Amino acid sequence: MLKNVAIASKPAKEEISERLDEEQAKLAANQMRIRSAQVPVVVIFEGWGAAGKGSVLGKVIKDMDPRFFSVATLDAKPTEEERMRPFLWRYMVEMPAQGQFKFFDTCWMEEVTDGLARDELDGAAYDRRIDSINMCERQLVDNGYLVMKFFFHLSKEEQRRRLDALSAHKNTRWRVNEDDYRENEQYDRFLHIYDRYLRDTNRSSAPWYIIDAEDGRKWATLQVLEFLNNGIEVAIHNRGASAPLRQNVFPLKHVKPLSAIPLDKTMEFEEYRNQLKELRGRLRMLHYEAYRKRIPVVIAYEGWDAAGKGGNIKRITSALDPRGYRVYPIASPEPHEKARHYLWRFWERLPKDGHIAIFDRTWYGRVMVERIEGFCSNNDWRRAYNEINEFEHELVEAGTVVIKFWVQIDSETQLERFTDRQNTPEKQWKITDEDWRNREKWDQYEQAVNEMLARTSTTFAPWHVLESNDKRYARVKAMRIVVNAIEKACRRKS
Amino acid sequence: MLKNVAIASKPAKEEISERLDEEQAKLAANQMRIRSAQVPVVVIFEGWGAAGKGSVLGKVIKDMDPRFFSVATLDAKPTEEERMRPFLWRYMVEMPAQGQFKFFDTCWMEEVTDGLARDELDGAAYDRRIDSINMCERQLVDNGYLVMKFFFHLSKEEQRRRLDALSAHKNTRWRVNEDDYRENEQYDRFLHIYDRYLRDTNRSSAPWYIIDAEDGRKWATLQVLEFLNNGIEVAIHNRGASAPLRQNVFPLKHVKPLSAIPLDKTMEFEEYRNQLKELRGRLRMLHYEAYRKRIPVVIAYEGWDAAGKGGNIKRITSALDPRGYRVYPIASPEPHEKARHYLWRFWERLPKDGHIAIFDRTWYGRVMVERIEGFCSNNDWRRAYNEINEFEHELVEAGTVVIKFWVQIDSETQLERFTDRQNTPEKQWKITDEDWRNREKWDQYEQAVNEMLARTSTTFAPWHVLESNDKRYARVKAMRIVVNAIEKACRRKS
Repeated sequence: MLKNVAIASKPAKEEISERLDEEQAKLAANQMRIRSAQVPVVVIFEGWGAAGKGSVLGKVIKDMDPRFFSVATLDAKPTEEERMRPFLWRYMVEMPAQGQFKFFDTCWMEEVTDGLARDELDGAAYDRRIDSINMCERQLVDNGYLVMKFFFHLSKEEQRRRLDALSAHKNTRWRVNEDDYRENEQYDRFLHIYDRYLRDTNRSSAPWYIIDAEDGRKWATLQVLEFLNNGIEVAIHNRGASAPLRQNVFPLKHVKPLSAIPLDKTMEFEEYRNQLKELRGRLRMLHYEAYRKRIPVVIAYEGWDAAGKGGNIKRITSALDPRGYRVYPIASPEPHEKARHYLWRFWERLPKDGHIAIFDRTWYGRVMVERIEGFCSNNDWRRAYNEINEFEHELVEAGTVVIKFWVQIDSETQLERFTDRQNTPEKQWKITDEDWRNREKWDQYEQAVNEMLARTSTTFAPWHVLESNDKRYARVKAMRIVVNAIEKACRRKS
Repeated sequence: MLKNVAIASKPAKEEISERLDEEQAKLAANQMRIRSAQVPVVVIFEGWGAAGKGSVLGKVIKDMDPRFFSVATLDAKPTEEERMRPFLWRYMVEMPAQGQFKFFDTCWMEEVTDGLARDELDGAAYDRRIDSINMCERQLVDNGYLVMKFFFHLSKEEQRRRLDALSAHKNTRWRVNEDDYRENEQYDRFLHIYDRYLRDTNRSSAPWYIIDAEDGRKWATLQVLEFLNNGIEVAIHNRGASAPLRQNVFPLKHVKPLSAIPLDKTMEFEEYRNQLKELRGRLRMLHYEAYRKRIPVVIAYEGWDAAGKGGNIKRITSALDPRGYRVYPIASPEPHEKARHYLWRFWERLPKDGHIAIFDRTWYGRVMVERIEGFCSNNDWRRAYNEINEFEHELVEAGTVVIKFWVQIDSETQLERFTDRQNTPEKQWKITDEDWRNREKWDQYEQAVNEMLARTSTTFAPWHVLESNDKRYARVKAMRIVVNAIEKACRRKS
């Protein structure tokens, strides 16, 4: 689409200045409207080297209130640290809160096209990146984000002229590097790469806007502002709109409904102690092996209140080197978390390669408590099954071992444990009125859990049900599943 | 996405019946909500032969009010007649009005996958079809349509079983043909073709829903109904939402603003008569040649009131064989036209191969009168430049010669002609109060026309300005442009 894009015809100089003032004032007003409408805005600048992205960005934000926007400058090449997380991670953690603007001075496009240009990304890997990016942009928009993407276009000759001009002066020489000259020398090759990327990611949820950057900074700024203001107006108009459901496209495993799972499994203390000891030893060694082989592990715990999640997690962590794992207890989102895509706080907590993250409650809150308590719309939680599968797929694609536990007990056992907690002074902190209120909704939750298990038990991230009426049995089972999963991943990566 | 789609797990028999009753009642109610919300609904059924599309369709419409839906059954292979129009034509003319449902028992997917299967569609042609389809589905959704797409999925074994069962009985034998058996024999090949198509067209604007058709008609019906009801609820919720602008991706020609066009060109009567005579002769012969070579021609006239469009058109048609052309005067849309996509009435009037359609006023009303009179939203007319270019691109891709005239006069000339019309009894019918009212908005219109010329003067369908202060000059110029354009097309197709 770059090769034959319709560049708007440049107006006369005075007209540009006039319209620029207008649009700048409009943006200042729109920023406040975005703030009161609580829409999060992502603005992405991509384009040729020396096309003036930076200086246009400077003009765009000139009259904006600096409390409500920020700029992310990510290098095309991820750092060592960033490469220890899934591809999308370093972008996702930058995502703005409601009412905030985030400007990306180059985003995932540059990383991908740079990889193509260096022949570091083959066809299949490129396709996976495109799928990830399209998925991510769609999810952002479906969850209320405005995503505006600008590509700054420049001819070979003009780029050359600018590079030479920058190199000629010692104050600006630092802004030009080998890569810029390489881009210029291989202009046609890069044109092809950019064109392909723009076509592949030009979707309705977040279309591309090509900016004529050939003809001066003011004109380029005006084009950006006009598109941006229009986008904001559309987004504000559409606030509260629902996204269409998308069917899950990942292969699912068949899982039984909770009621079909017998809970009579038990384990004698002696056997429990022996097995635990053996498993603990293996897990300890595997943890070092996974660290050495840079395999990240995510262990997700969900289950009924008082099902024994905490004790279960403790048995796992007792085998782990504390430098290499972290447990995240997940409660209701904090205000700054609630203001973002509901998966944002989990993106933020993803483990680095070789590390283990254990989540005590997870992103599945979306399709359980948020669904049942009405904290999100019907459409939101229905859409979330697919979104969550996509999220976990990203993790698995990045080499993460994803283990999901549902800790299951029956209603009577819960009642016993609640009563016990109530009556034991040192356990009283563990039981709240909310637990009792949730207990009254047991049937509603059970239905939601069954639907969740059926819709998100993918082949790459299946659910494991831990029968936890007997906590010993559940602990050993969990440990064994974790050991087997990490062992398998280590063997694959030898 | 077909290869690893997550098929919902089939509930127990009684549950299916229960949910089926629920969803059927819901659909009946939703039909009325669609009617009062005035949303047009397109439902597309595609899938394997013998997957039960027809019988599920029968169950879906069972409780619907037949006044407000209809079924289009299009053959995978277009008829001779249909092939004389652009690919999308036979589908576009079927598009429902606001508040109406249209069920397509196979739509464009089958035509495309059938073409692939028969090796009649090569890679580039396939890509063009995919572009057309994605464009069309997006335009429909952007203009307020709900588009729901279902693919009925079936295993090789089950398909075989059904085909054999149908063939075994004389009453059902007619429902099975060679193609069905071929599809079954080459199941893996077709699976690949379908999978590719589903992936390529699975966009946010109209995602695919894969229906498990393996396990009985009731279960398949239930899946369709649940998705359909959900889609309807989302669409009703989103009524009035705006679509994001998309930048034009076609190469534009540079055009001058109207004020820069000198209007002093004239032509003496003698020369006019001679040139007209010569051109008329050439056009007559070219019309036959274009007919023989099956080249369709679209001539679009826009221009100021009293600019001389009528007389200009008359000179063109005087050279044409009346069996091979048609003039369409375009006024405000009729109610049944207004109830559809604004381009629908033009799709309906497209010429067959070898025929000429002359439009006296056109689809450009969207960005002129509808813009200025506020008949559509700001977002609607801004979006329309790209939509119109896409529309014309479809025509040109199908081999159509598209010629667009802007008939230009200055304001003084218009006043003279208005006054003359007012004062000449036999011309008085030509002048109305509305003409005077429009005249008062000359400046607004001029701005809109300039923007239109700049944004829609594509290389494949450029605007030609006819300087019509001297009608003779304008007529000869128009005739020459038409002659040259058709001649060029005929030469290319020798």
